Formats: sequence, C-alpha cells, structure tokens
Amino acid sequence: MCTPRIMETVRKRLEKEGPPSMSRRRLLKLGGGLAAGAAVAASHPLPLLGQDMMGEVVDLTHVLGESSPHIFGPDFAPSREKMEFLSEIIYWQQWSINEHVSTHVDMPSHFILDGGEHTDTYDANLLVSPAVVIDISARAAEDADAFVTVEDIQAWESRHGEVPPGALVCMHSGWETYWDNPQAFINRDETGVAHFPGFGGEAAAFLVEERDIHGVAVDVASLDPGNSTTVPTHYTVLGAGLYGIENVRNLAAIKDRVATVVVGIPRWEEGSGGPCRVLALT
Amino acid sequence: MCTPRIMETVRKRLEKEGPPSMSRRRLLKLGGGLAAGAAVAASHPLPLLGQDMMGEVVDLTHVLGESSPHIFGPDFAPSREKMEFLSEIIYWQQWSINEHVSTHVDMPSHFILDGGEHTDTYDANLLVSPAVVIDISARAAEDADAFVTVEDIQAWESRHGEVPPGALVCMHSGWETYWDNPQAFINRDETGVAHFPGFGGEAAAFLVEERDIHGVAVDVASLDPGNSTTVPTHYTVLGAGLYGIENVRNLAAIKDRVATVVVGIPRWEEGSGGPCRVLALT
Repeated sequence: MCTPRIMETVRKRLEKEGPPSMSRRRLLKLGGGLAAGAAVAASHPLPLLGQDMMGEVVDLTHVLGESSPHIFGPDFAPSREKMEFLSEIIYWQQWSINEHVSTHVDMPSHFILDGGEHTDTYDANLLVSPAVVIDISARAAEDADAFVTVEDIQAWESRHGEVPPGALVCMHSGWETYWDNPQAFINRDETGVAHFPGFGGEAAAFLVEERDIHGVAVDVASLDPGNSTTVPTHYTVLGAGLYGIENVRNLAAIKDRVATVVVGIPRWEEGSGGPCRVLALT
Repeated sequence: MCTPRIMETVRKRLEKEGPPSMSRRRLLKLGGGLAAGAAVAASHPLPLLGQDMMGEVVDLTHVLGESSPHIFGPDFAPSREKMEFLSEIIYWQQWSINEHVSTHVDMPSHFILDGGEHTDTYDANLLVSPAVVIDISARAAEDADAFVTVEDIQAWESRHGEVPPGALVCMHSGWETYWDNPQAFINRDETGVAHFPGFGGEAAAFLVEERDIHGVAVDVASLDPGNSTTVPTHYTVLGAGLYGIENVRNLAAIKDRVATVVVGIPRWEEGSGGPCRVLALT
C-alpha cells in the first residue's frame, strides 16, 4: 500500500518522534496510513486499518463443542451431526444448540424479561470496544470465591487512567486453565454450590453508574461469582441495556496492551445472547 | 483519553498536513492516538482504536431467522424454541441450525473434503481484512446472471490502486433487496435453475493467483452465480485455504470507503463454516 519511499520517510519521522511505549509495527501502521493517505489522490480510499498494517489478532474464544463445560451441566451442552444432503460433494453439520454455550454473550433480554433488548436489534456500535483487563488471577489462585472489587478497578485506573468510554471491562482470573475439565471449571461443592470468581456487585454498579462502559467479560461461566445467589452483576449490567460475555479466554495476552475487542454475536431472531467469536485487534 | 491540549495540537498539525481525502474524524482518531501515545508515560496503554475514537460500525449481517432464505429451500432453514428451564427467571432459546444459513462463512472444509480447514483451527488473523467492494449492481439490475469479471476488478484497481494484501473482496450486486422474499432471492426458473449474480470463475482465479486476498464475500446465496453448475469460485477460493461469505448486506454503505471487516464466525468443532456477525469498522 505504501511505497518504500513513503514508508522510509514515515519510519524516520516516527523513530524520531514516536513514543517508546508503542511497538514499531503500530508506529508504521498508524504513521504509514497517515503518510500514504497524504501522498495519494483524494479519491483513493486506502485501507488504513488493513491487515498488512495491523498487529496480531488475539482470539479470546474457546472452541465450542459437545464436551464444552456448561454451568447447568452436560445436558445443556450442544450436539451436532454431519449433514447427509449432498454429502458426496460438500461437508456441513447440523447443530442443536442453546444461546448460552461456550464463549457467549448475555444480552439484556436474558435477564430483563420485560423489554430487554435482543441480538437482532442491538446497536452494532456497542460490539466494538477498547479492552480493559482487570487481573485478579493471583487472588483467584488462592480463593475460588474471589471477585472483582471497586478497589481493583481503582488500582487499574491508578496505573492506566480512567476506564475509557465504551470499554469492555474484562475479569482475568486465570480460570480458563480448568476449561478442559468441566467439573473443575464449574467447581460445585457437596451442597451443589459452584465456586469460581466473578464480578462483585459493587464493582459492576461502579462501572455502570460511574463509568461509561459497553459491557463486561469474564473467563468463567457466569458474570457473577459461582456462589452468588442474587447475581447482581447480571441485573446491573443487563438492566442498564449493556451486555456480558462469559467463558472468554486468553485475556493475559491483551493485559496492559492496546486492544480493540470485536464481539461477533449471531444476529439471530429474538436472541437472548449467543455463542460468539471474540477477537481482540492489537 | 486525550487531553484537550493534546487534541488541539494534533488537530492543528493534521489540518496542516492531513490529506483532503481523510475525514476529520479519522484524522483525529489516528492523529490523536499517536500524539496521546507520545505524551503519556510508557506504561500507559491508551486504547488507540477505542470506540470513542472510532467511526461508525457498519453491520453487514442479515437477521437470521426461521424465514431467512436458504439456497436449498425452507427445509434447511433454522428453527428455534424458547427454553423452559428457569424460564421464570431467564429468557433463552434453543436452536436447530445448520452451518450454512443467513449471513455465513464457507470454510475450506465445506468443499475440500480431504483436508480442508475447519472453523475451530482457522487462523484468526485471516478474519480481519480491509474491504474491497466491487459494484456490479447496475449490470445485475438488468441481468440476474451477471457476474464479477477480471475487468471489474481491474476497473476498481484503476480507481483505487491494487487490491491490498489481506483484502476481503466483496461483490455488491444489490441483490439484498430481495432478502425478504426468499423465492425472489434464490430466483429459480421453471427448470429449477437459480438466477442470481456471483463471482465469475476467472475473477476468482485472478484474485487467488495474482493478488493476496483473505477471502471473498457476496450479497447473494452463493459465491458462484446461481446458474453455475461447476461452482469454480467455491473450489478456487476454498481450495486455496481461503474463505467465502454468503448473504452479506449493506455493502453500499462501505463502498469506496476505508473499512476493516471483522468476521465473527463461531469457533465450533469441525465446523464447515457458520452463521457469523460481519462488522465493518470505518
């Protein structure tokens, strides 16, 4: 897209002026786009954010399959079969699947039974967000009932500045290490109570009331900690018309990095959510 | 994210140096990110691509429902039912759905039965691409069998420059106007042959062999024109390990604009493709 001469000019300018915190690749990406845009005709819509100028795409999505953990147990896992029609020419599968399996979105309508918004009408602008990753993995390693507090968010803000408008605020608890062992992932005790981390209700209220977020995401099976009986994070976030994402992975790879998260939720009719592809553009 | 002082400095610099083809908003977005990055501490990961600095998100996805058109007829449409479990507290649905409904991806394994790649292992970097929109809507309005030719691509390149590396090359035929009328959308004649536009085999071969694309997308039910019996575009694109997207919409909104397309395909087990959210970041 950029001629070698332009790229060299931009590289030199950016090496002189560029901040040490930005990667060379990002510098070239942004600077290259600007300079190339300046050098070409006005009618030439250069893809400034084109793949050749982008950094790594980080996949925050688990594989979805028949053995994926489900908070309500294996009876709620999806099933699949190979389609027979035209099978000598094409390969395809038929799925039986509910809207809350593997890495998936909770839309407002999942908990807000009267008027909560569905997948098919939700504003697509809200599906693209800067990522904020709150890391409680050290605490969660000691205590399965650990949860995100207002202090955790404030500690993040003291290092990085205020949670930016439109953010997707993600809890990284490290719980994804149990993904391949559904029993350990849901972690029910002998009385049936689950034990895994989540957002505390006060942290959720702080984000919704004091900040201007798009949604929250967790690397566990529920927005609220497993032992919560009142699930305030669900009601607070979904009640505000925002969304949650459960069972994300790989947040360590974007922690403390610049990343834009795109939530590829199916646009199916009257959906209460759905298994989604969550990609972080870095 | 950026202080008013920084933004003002950047704005002035960009107004002086910025290319006339770039929108003010994009200038501020890119320039603001650079300048803000330069002005803050090295440990401060500013979301350069944050929502507050982004343009519009254009949704290229149709609603997926029981009455969505399907190339093989309504027997292949999805079905859904409301889940009864916990229905006094939560709302959710169970779907029966095949991998090729509504706006969806064809992965290599859909046609390449021996070793074609599935959704669960496909490189996520290939799901983010600069958009190239080839507009054949004028011709398609006169001829349902119109198809994208090598000359159409060359005409685009004469205006915009070579198809950029990693592009998603999209056919805009205008056929989405028939979406709500499945019979008109598939448009079978009395002999059963479908008539809608698509990529010609030579254009597909040109893109795969002479350019470095990620995939192709069409606003109709098949990558190849409806009357094709040999479906060369499917075999050429999928055979090269690339992908196709069928039944996209809204391409007119990103035609001749800078847009990065993110393909939110489900990461389900051994998927041959899947209904996906396709979002264009402008």
